[in-house]
Amino acid sequence: MVKPRILQQNKISTKVGQKPGFLFRPENAFDTRLFLISFDEFELVEKEYESYDELFAYMQQRPHQRHWLDVRGYGNLEILENIARDFNIHPLQLEDVISDYQRPKVEEESGSLFMISRMVTFTPKKLIDDDQLSIFTGPNYVLTFQSDYEDCLNPLRLRIRGGKGIIRKRPVVYMAYAIMDVVLDHYFPVLAEMSDYLDELEDCLFKQPKKEILSRILSVKREIVKLRRIIWPERDKISELLRSSPEVIPDDLKIYFRDTYDHSVQIIDLVENYKEMSGSLVELYLSNINNRMNEIMKVLTIISSIFIPLSFIVGIYGMNFSRENPDGSINYLNMPELYQPYGYITLLFLMGALILGQIYFFYRKGWFK
Amino acid sequence: MVKPRILQQNKISTKVGQKPGFLFRPENAFDTRLFLISFDEFELVEKEYESYDELFAYMQQRPHQRHWLDVRGYGNLEILENIARDFNIHPLQLEDVISDYQRPKVEEESGSLFMISRMVTFTPKKLIDDDQLSIFTGPNYVLTFQSDYEDCLNPLRLRIRGGKGIIRKRPVVYMAYAIMDVVLDHYFPVLAEMSDYLDELEDCLFKQPKKEILSRILSVKREIVKLRRIIWPERDKISELLRSSPEVIPDDLKIYFRDTYDHSVQIIDLVENYKEMSGSLVELYLSNINNRMNEIMKVLTIISSIFIPLSFIVGIYGMNFSRENPDGSINYLNMPELYQPYGYITLLFLMGALILGQIYFFYRKGWFK
Amino acid sequence: MVKPRILQQNKISTKVGQKPGFLFRPENAFDTRLFLISFDEFELVEKEYESYDELFAYMQQRPHQRHWLDVRGYGNLEILENIARDFNIHPLQLEDVISDYQRPKVEEESGSLFMISRMVTFTPKKLIDDDQLSIFTGPNYVLTFQSDYEDCLNPLRLRIRGGKGIIRKRPVVYMAYAIMDVVLDHYFPVLAEMSDYLDELEDCLFKQPKKEILSRILSVKREIVKLRRIIWPERDKISELLRSSPEVIPDDLKIYFRDTYDHSVQIIDLVENYKEMSGSLVELYLSNINNRMNEIMKVLTIISSIFIPLSFIVGIYGMNFSRENPDGSINYLNMPELYQPYGYITLLFLMGALILGQIYFFYRKGWFK
Amino acid sequence: MVKPRILQQNKISTKVGQKPGFLFRPENAFDTRLFLISFDEFELVEKEYESYDELFAYMQQRPHQRHWLDVRGYGNLEILENIARDFNIHPLQLEDVISDYQRPKVEEESGSLFMISRMVTFTPKKLIDDDQLSIFTGPNYVLTFQSDYEDCLNPLRLRIRGGKGIIRKRPVVYMAYAIMDVVLDHYFPVLAEMSDYLDELEDCLFKQPKKEILSRILSVKREIVKLRRIIWPERDKISELLRSSPEVIPDDLKIYFRDTYDHSVQIIDLVENYKEMSGSLVELYLSNINNRMNEIMKVLTIISSIFIPLSFIVGIYGMNFSRENPDGSINYLNMPELYQPYGYITLLFLMGALILGQIYFFYRKGWFK
Amino acid sequence: MVKPRILQQNKISTKVGQKPGFLFRPENAFDTRLFLISFDEFELVEKEYESYDELFAYMQQRPHQRHWLDVRGYGNLEILENIARDFNIHPLQLEDVISDYQRPKVEEESGSLFMISRMVTFTPKKLIDDDQLSIFTGPNYVLTFQSDYEDCLNPLRLRIRGGKGIIRKRPVVYMAYAIMDVVLDHYFPVLAEMSDYLDELEDCLFKQPKKEILSRILSVKREIVKLRRIIWPERDKISELLRSSPEVIPDDLKIYFRDTYDHSVQIIDLVENYKEMSGSLVELYLSNINNRMNEIMKVLTIISSIFIPLSFIVGIYGMNFSRENPDGSINYLNMPELYQPYGYITLLFLMGALILGQIYFFYRKGWFK
Repeated sequence: MVKPRILQQNKISTKVGQKPGFLFRPENAFDTRLFLISFDEFELVEKEYESYDELFAYMQQRPHQRHWLDVRGYGNLEILENIARDFNIHPLQLEDVISDYQRPKVEEESGSLFMISRMVTFTPKKLIDDDQLSIFTGPNYVLTFQSDYEDCLNPLRLRIRGGKGIIRKRPVVYMAYAIMDVVLDHYFPVLAEMSDYLDELEDCLFKQPKKEILSRILSVKREIVKLRRIIWPERDKISELLRSSPEVIPDDLKIYFRDTYDHSVQIIDLVENYKEMSGSLVELYLSNINNRMNEIMKVLTIISSIFIPLSFIVGIYGMNFSRENPDGSINYLNMPELYQPYGYITLLFLMGALILGQIYFFYRKGWFK
Repeated sequence: MVKPRILQQNKISTKVGQKPGFLFRPENAFDTRLFLISFDEFELVEKEYESYDELFAYMQQRPHQRHWLDVRGYGNLEILENIARDFNIHPLQLEDVISDYQRPKVEEESGSLFMISRMVTFTPKKLIDDDQLSIFTGPNYVLTFQSDYEDCLNPLRLRIRGGKGIIRKRPVVYMAYAIMDVVLDHYFPVLAEMSDYLDELEDCLFKQPKKEILSRILSVKREIVKLRRIIWPERDKISELLRSSPEVIPDDLKIYFRDTYDHSVQIIDLVENYKEMSGSLVELYLSNINNRMNEIMKVLTIISSIFIPLSFIVGIYGMNFSRENPDGSINYLNMPELYQPYGYITLLFLMGALILGQIYFFYRKGWFK
Repeated sequence: MVKPRILQQNKISTKVGQKPGFLFRPENAFDTRLFLISFDEFELVEKEYESYDELFAYMQQRPHQRHWLDVRGYGNLEILENIARDFNIHPLQLEDVISDYQRPKVEEESGSLFMISRMVTFTPKKLIDDDQLSIFTGPNYVLTFQSDYEDCLNPLRLRIRGGKGIIRKRPVVYMAYAIMDVVLDHYFPVLAEMSDYLDELEDCLFKQPKKEILSRILSVKREIVKLRRIIWPERDKISELLRSSPEVIPDDLKIYFRDTYDHSVQIIDLVENYKEMSGSLVELYLSNINNRMNEIMKVLTIISSIFIPLSFIVGIYGMNFSRENPDGSINYLNMPELYQPYGYITLLFLMGALILGQIYFFYRKGWFK
Repeated sequence: MVKPRILQQNKISTKVGQKPGFLFRPENAFDTRLFLISFDEFELVEKEYESYDELFAYMQQRPHQRHWLDVRGYGNLEILENIARDFNIHPLQLEDVISDYQRPKVEEESGSLFMISRMVTFTPKKLIDDDQLSIFTGPNYVLTFQSDYEDCLNPLRLRIRGGKGIIRKRPVVYMAYAIMDVVLDHYFPVLAEMSDYLDELEDCLFKQPKKEILSRILSVKREIVKLRRIIWPERDKISELLRSSPEVIPDDLKIYFRDTYDHSVQIIDLVENYKEMSGSLVELYLSNINNRMNEIMKVLTIISSIFIPLSFIVGIYGMNFSRENPDGSINYLNMPELYQPYGYITLLFLMGALILGQIYFFYRKGWFK
Repeated sequence: MVKPRILQQNKISTKVGQKPGFLFRPENAFDTRLFLISFDEFELVEKEYESYDELFAYMQQRPHQRHWLDVRGYGNLEILENIARDFNIHPLQLEDVISDYQRPKVEEESGSLFMISRMVTFTPKKLIDDDQLSIFTGPNYVLTFQSDYEDCLNPLRLRIRGGKGIIRKRPVVYMAYAIMDVVLDHYFPVLAEMSDYLDELEDCLFKQPKKEILSRILSVKREIVKLRRIIWPERDKISELLRSSPEVIPDDLKIYFRDTYDHSVQIIDLVENYKEMSGSLVELYLSNINNRMNEIMKVLTIISSIFIPLSFIVGIYGMNFSRENPDGSINYLNMPELYQPYGYITLLFLMGALILGQIYFFYRKGWFK
């Protein structure tokens, strides 16, 4: 497994002083691909276009249909700028679309919306990975922008293709809602995976607390904090949408946004829970270190307390005090024990008793668990 | 006892991208049972119905009575959908009802209320268990939904059956209040049990601080945090009800809601107290580990400090410096002590004095408590 | 002294599902006693009544006087219910009065006030003890309720009896203010005693940090948190009174309430200070444990570092390497030191030098303080 | 140096139940002294008066001049009460003036202001010392009250005496501003001294972390918290003044108050910084204790690891296994090493190699720094 | 590398009691230099002026051009006061300009703006260095003040010189925006460098946790807290600008300010992240100390546990119990092991087995990693 790091290399854009709205082609940008789903209640056409002009002409010809233009990859700035021109996107908004990182937000102008959502995925290696999804709505279209080809919107595409239901009858803002809702729903499985990961870490803590675990816990904590930074503005975004005028979001659609709002609050609750829990894991880890120290010290103390005094005792009887007085007579005061017939055996018994006594003492102190 | 875990397996719904309001039959859902209490000031009829149609017909025939339809178990989606249709429940609301987890909230529409409360119970094994209770009010009925057959509303049922008092004369919103109030009142015994549990943990801490206690404290802390997440929106819910128009809640009933509001604030106070206390228990545990370490070290140090120097002393007199010079004469400088008549006894006395001196030294340092 | 506990047995009422306003006679309730002080500018009559009817008749006859009816002990529910009926007290309010614990609050209805204050006392055993004082005002009377016979209002009674001053001329709401103010003033000596107690704990920490001190600090912290839970709503209560209409509190009295408001804010400052300080004491305690550990380790290390090498040295000269070769000749290589005339004395000197050297080394390291 | 204490003996007034506005002569109160500065654009008279009546008569005679009456010491209650009567000071305000501790606040009534500021000084012994300065403004006078004779207003007095500038032309509220501003400006040198003190503590931490340092850090932290309690309401006070009507503070003076507001926010920033830093110092201290423990343990472990095994080895060759079989023949199996010609020297070499090996091992582990 | 310090010598201005708006020439102030860029859509003139009068005359003659007067260095107070007089700058504002430290803020008066921004740079030695940039706008000019000659505005100067684009057509407030935006954009590379620095510290922590690292982490934390104190008011400043009237900032420019607002919020997110991370590093450091202690203790315990009992055993066989009874007969009970033919070898084997057993025991406990 990769060495866990607490600090994550943040991709911070460091261009300074460019004129606002100036576009950089991001490094390693994917080629731009254009997907269009056009539909009304009766018909649905889905196609990937090579040429933007062809696509735009097609949309122009079908003003009564609804269109979802899905732009993936920012490799071709020219196409992006054409789209911005044709769909009335401000250069600063386009800059936001292409930038590495924007917080979830919504901007409303003359009835059309510009929203930024963040799509999250979980992998045990990189933990949380979050990509930006930019959504624009117009009278009869929804535009989405994302930097790579994978996303979490397939369930929605299936619903559009399959169902002739509500989504194909409602105004396009409903589809914007549906996209936002699918993105938000995707947080739940990610959080479930995160929960499993935390669970696994707790298991490790109980089994064998390795040094790296703390790094791992702290890096999960960092990711939870990151999630928190994403999900709070997400909630604010939805709450702002809920307060918008009926021209932007018809009143009968508001209940759907309120539902999404509830979801965002639930996600916040879960994220806050995980934050608390990762803090608890740190506490547990630290107390585990101390507990291990206690155990190590107990082993040392038991061994030392038993054998150091015994060594002293046998040291006594290794002394060479002279049995003889200078005049050759026997000195009965110098170490008479050595000359007792049962001296050695008595000593062994005494030392055995001492050992048992100490063991009993430590047992009573509860040092053997 | 079950091994305590800090992390709790959260049941996170992971269905993504379904159309809003789409109903899943929850796994392990209980069969749907229907209980109806119909009453006015003079009469009360209470019955469990097998057939929803029969029940609905009965309600239709008695428009001047008040009805409490109590739906338990979400196993039969068809019945639930029929109820939603007949009682004008929005699909998204029905989805909320069936979902695993919703925060307490209230939604008001054209004078009728949709409220979600959470019923909590305490068991030493699982600590806090919380179930969702959904309440709808209409002109002459209250609908409640819950996922299993057990609840904490029996005291209220007894009151309705027994008393001919206020509850059978007041508008149905009073009954909604009564249900909410009983649910909230039930928090107090749960908190009392939690307090006992914390108390028991503190006892354990003083007696024999085992390793598992920290996990147990941290899992109680997690539950307290969970309670907090429930009770704060509960308070907000009641506060929103207090601000609602007199058509929804007549002014003379507001005082009852204010009383419930006071209860919710008291619960918050208690929960915050318990949070603080569980934090104190963690601090106490950690300092206990350190105190034990101190004690272990004291034993080691006392034993070592006494016997290691003594071992050195007896080691001296175990040396084999020669008493004889090469010329056979006696070398009076090499270890003359060994040849003193009282050498051994003097040494024993000296070592005894040393031991006593050290014991006195450690006693003065307060190492024997 | 009683064993300090962090957790305090909270008296949590666990009755569930009773109809709102239902009265329980609290366990161990004191007999209800009735004290009446009736006065105008010229006259003052003070009496304890056995019979409530007699008392009420007396009040009825003197509509132009002001009356302070002081009800102590909740043993006789019937009297309390009669008072509620005669003085227009809502059953829910009466329930609040009798309940164990209500936060400070104020309710205003048609110009009369219902206020709850908490009277605190400090004892070294139980630390903070808080009793509830409920105050009702009417056109010409003030009603107070308390659960036992002791209170902190005697200074006020003395002022009423003695002074013919402002308190006997002003509207009754001034008396309600005066009661509330006396209760709040009583927090200051309690805080002073708490400060002394904390001071004593700090002294203990410096002298001899016993194990129980942490429990004691943590239980003081708990009490401080409890005080905080009381005093913040107290402030809110006064702030609400300040915003009330001139009919309830005449404008020229507002300055008195603002003064009380300032006091409540001062109390909050002090309580927050004490909270901070008790946190500092915990930090100090924990660092003291570690410092003691350091000291213990130093003793062990000094003793071991000095005597373990010495034991090795004397061990060398206790070895029995043979002085004789197999052929009987002397082996000058095996332990020649033993046969030097000054061998023993030289060794003793060397070991003495080693000891001094080590002592100097540890002295330089600053291990002897 | 005085023994640092975390807890500071708080002077808490413990008089309870006195009638509001009742004045106590504070213990150890200074004699009341009266200083008057009267000036207009052309003239300035400054004098200390013995008699208040004389002073008041002088002020009455000069209604077109501006007066700054500076009252120092609260020893003579009669004078204070006369001033209160003549200058229309409410008894509760006078009580505030004399009281030990009031938070910074402002009260406005019919165009005149009553403000409380706190003057701080720093001494290494007592750290922060704060005195109360009460300011009243009237149509043509400013009244200030302080409990002792020293204050930080001398720079302002010099400005009034010296300059004929703006301060002598503007309305008196400008002078109130000037006083408040000087008091606030005085926080900066105090904070600079505090910064030096913290710096010195950090130096101590690096040199020789004594036990008392933690107490000292924690007592600085307490003082910082105290400052915070003073400076936040100071900011609120100024912000309230900024919102006051143009009759109280003319619009062209508001810019001066906004400047003072900026200063108060800067002070808050600094105080919050110091709070953070004192927390860092605590962390540093605690980690230093642990580092020292590590060092102590390293010494013990190195010495023990080297010499305990060696002692065992020399112990082996101190055993007395018999070289002779019972039949008198030589037992070549019992400790033959002792009889090798180079046995002793070989052993010494081996032990030397063992010592070097261990030293290398610990060196590689980085235990010698 | 310089010794890291947690406390940073704060430059706190300690002048007290000066009249508001009084100017001090800062110590070590740079000579004042004047740079003027004058331009319209067609022409651009850029020049450094020696004489302010000449410069002002030039500006007066070209009322239809736009001017950016860039004042660097506060050494010449006279010039600054002339500028203040000519461009209508209040003395208090000029005082703010020259002062060491002002929080970011904006003041608006009659359509012109006074803004303070802080320019930050990162150096590994001093970490964050922040300089103040003061901006004034007028009908056709922008004034900037900074204390030294280096700044981060060069990219903007290049844009003005090069592009004939939007910046030379828009009203001057757009240029004020552009300056503010460049300053803010400069935070991103500074944060990237800070991230690298934190990263390096984490690396050090894993390799060899030296004592100084904690100081270094804590001083980074201090800098992050400093950044936070700067960036939050920066955000508030922009948010205030966003709410200003269309006369001050035309509506079509608001979108640019909103973009800058988004940037400030992103910076806040990053700064909060770094704060969290530096806290995690402290936790990691502390747990590392404890882990090292554990390792040290393990070495000691393993060595001691193996060799102390062995020393005892060999001590036994070094005792001198007499083989002979007083009558000269052999005492077969005293240490018979010494006289066994295979005694020594058996003992060596037994001790070897003991060593292996203990090694296995510690291996099973996981003490060898």
